[in-house]
Amino acid sequence: MSKVLIFGHQNPDTDAITAAISFAHLQKQLGVEAEAVALGTVNEETAYALNTFKTEAPRVITAALKETKQVMLVDHNEAQQSVTDIKDLDVLAVVDHHRIANFETANPLYYRAEPVGCSNTIILKLYKEHAITIPQNIAGLMLSAIISDTLLFKSPTCTEEDIRAAKELAAIAEVDLEAYGLEMLKAGTNLSDKTEEELLNSDAKSFPMGNKNVRIGQVNTVDVAEVLARQAALETAMEAQNKQNGYDLFVLVITNILDSDSEILVVGQDKEKVEKAFQTELTNNTATLKGVVSRKKQVVPQLTEAFK
Amino acid sequence: MSKVLIFGHQNPDTDAITAAISFAHLQKQLGVEAEAVALGTVNEETAYALNTFKTEAPRVITAALKETKQVMLVDHNEAQQSVTDIKDLDVLAVVDHHRIANFETANPLYYRAEPVGCSNTIILKLYKEHAITIPQNIAGLMLSAIISDTLLFKSPTCTEEDIRAAKELAAIAEVDLEAYGLEMLKAGTNLSDKTEEELLNSDAKSFPMGNKNVRIGQVNTVDVAEVLARQAALETAMEAQNKQNGYDLFVLVITNILDSDSEILVVGQDKEKVEKAFQTELTNNTATLKGVVSRKKQVVPQLTEAFK
Repeated sequence: MSKVLIFGHQNPDTDAITAAISFAHLQKQLGVEAEAVALGTVNEETAYALNTFKTEAPRVITAALKETKQVMLVDHNEAQQSVTDIKDLDVLAVVDHHRIANFETANPLYYRAEPVGCSNTIILKLYKEHAITIPQNIAGLMLSAIISDTLLFKSPTCTEEDIRAAKELAAIAEVDLEAYGLEMLKAGTNLSDKTEEELLNSDAKSFPMGNKNVRIGQVNTVDVAEVLARQAALETAMEAQNKQNGYDLFVLVITNILDSDSEILVVGQDKEKVEKAFQTELTNNTATLKGVVSRKKQVVPQLTEAFK
Repeated sequence: MSKVLIFGHQNPDTDAITAAISFAHLQKQLGVEAEAVALGTVNEETAYALNTFKTEAPRVITAALKETKQVMLVDHNEAQQSVTDIKDLDVLAVVDHHRIANFETANPLYYRAEPVGCSNTIILKLYKEHAITIPQNIAGLMLSAIISDTLLFKSPTCTEEDIRAAKELAAIAEVDLEAYGLEMLKAGTNLSDKTEEELLNSDAKSFPMGNKNVRIGQVNTVDVAEVLARQAALETAMEAQNKQNGYDLFVLVITNILDSDSEILVVGQDKEKVEKAFQTELTNNTATLKGVVSRKKQVVPQLTEAFK
């Protein structure tokens, strides 16, 4: 078997980056010539985790075929969230915790998805199934991903299994889970020195819904008003991105990680679909979604249904 | 959670039927109100296995929504191989060993695919992961599926894991693996009293390839000449099915389970794609494919590539 590249989704979050690292380490122990790479630069939260656990960020690629035909995907499966040449590659394995869509292979493969809060919760199980020891730094990175994806267990996507996994990994990593977790999350909320484009791109994903192309971004903050103070500039940037990339609708989810509510900002066509999805009315293109923190569980299915 | 229906693909083979039974039993032990059903009547091989291990055939359904919205799929994932209303259902789990295509969910789910020879090899692992004991009759049915899918370990889809699983299940089922296996396979090769339609439908599946709809059937036999003696009648029936169901191409794979070769019979458009796929020339719509016994590994990927 030649080299295998392992990567998470575009606009990588902490789970996308660290799942590539942890799954590549596992594959190497199993004899696979694996390398973790990333489909974008790391955000500040991930940089904080990598720095704490003294691990280098994976190198960035956008396509794979020049290097290898064999890849493994973590934390995503939809083609539009992957490398640009995914259709020409052989996907050997997927470890994911999202819905399955726009994913197709010619051959049987290893696919492991579970409806848990974080890809690394599944990867922890895989380490156990193969009886491979997890190094301290990789345990710390896996823990960081669970904290990030579940917002320190506050997200409705969080399961008992995620909490158990986080506690187990915190013990191996030798950190105080709550204290480290809050520090790491706060490191990711420093939005003031970011451009509008950086805010929109930092964790945005595209979703085909009905026959429309919907872009959904999400930023975490401890101060929603600070983000909304830039509404006019954000809308201009969202309109530009819609035009440039063919998005029909752009939804930016601004999530307050302290009180676990979100404000949405909506630009593009079919705004009434957004109102239908969340049974709300947009005022000046915005609406408050009480208790909404999870794009995957509280935004994407509702919008998908409204676009049917 | 309300009732969950569990089923394998249309035109069920032994793995499709018994994986539904074995996975439903596991789910019931885990507290799920599960029922194994089937998307067609059992073939003679499966009937032999069910009879040997004193288990009733699952009742047949074609759609599920009238009974429940919640389903689990075994031994398939492609929509056109499933219940007719699959797009309106919530797929909670999939256990499969095929390629992934034409499969989409709105929500995260449990998906367990591994590139092994049989779904029941994976289900055996799930029993172990949950530390659930396998009843003797279910072990016998799971064993029957592995023998069927791997043609008693002769298929290139067969892995070391399938062989280990079969030996383990044979011990629980208290049968002689080789002797029982050959008897069961032979029970499935009694083709003489079947109509052409029954031969074509017994294990046929549809595959979208490029923008074409390709139907691929497979029959196992110990006497290929006996099947080819009916070529004219088979071609007439294949043409009728193409017309009626919108298949662009029908490929019937006639597999000799003793010498592990296959003869193909081809009716419809794009015959040159078949020649390209197998680097052969059709003579009177037929060709011999030496060493080919696995549709999944030796027919579907090659045809898919040729239709690209």
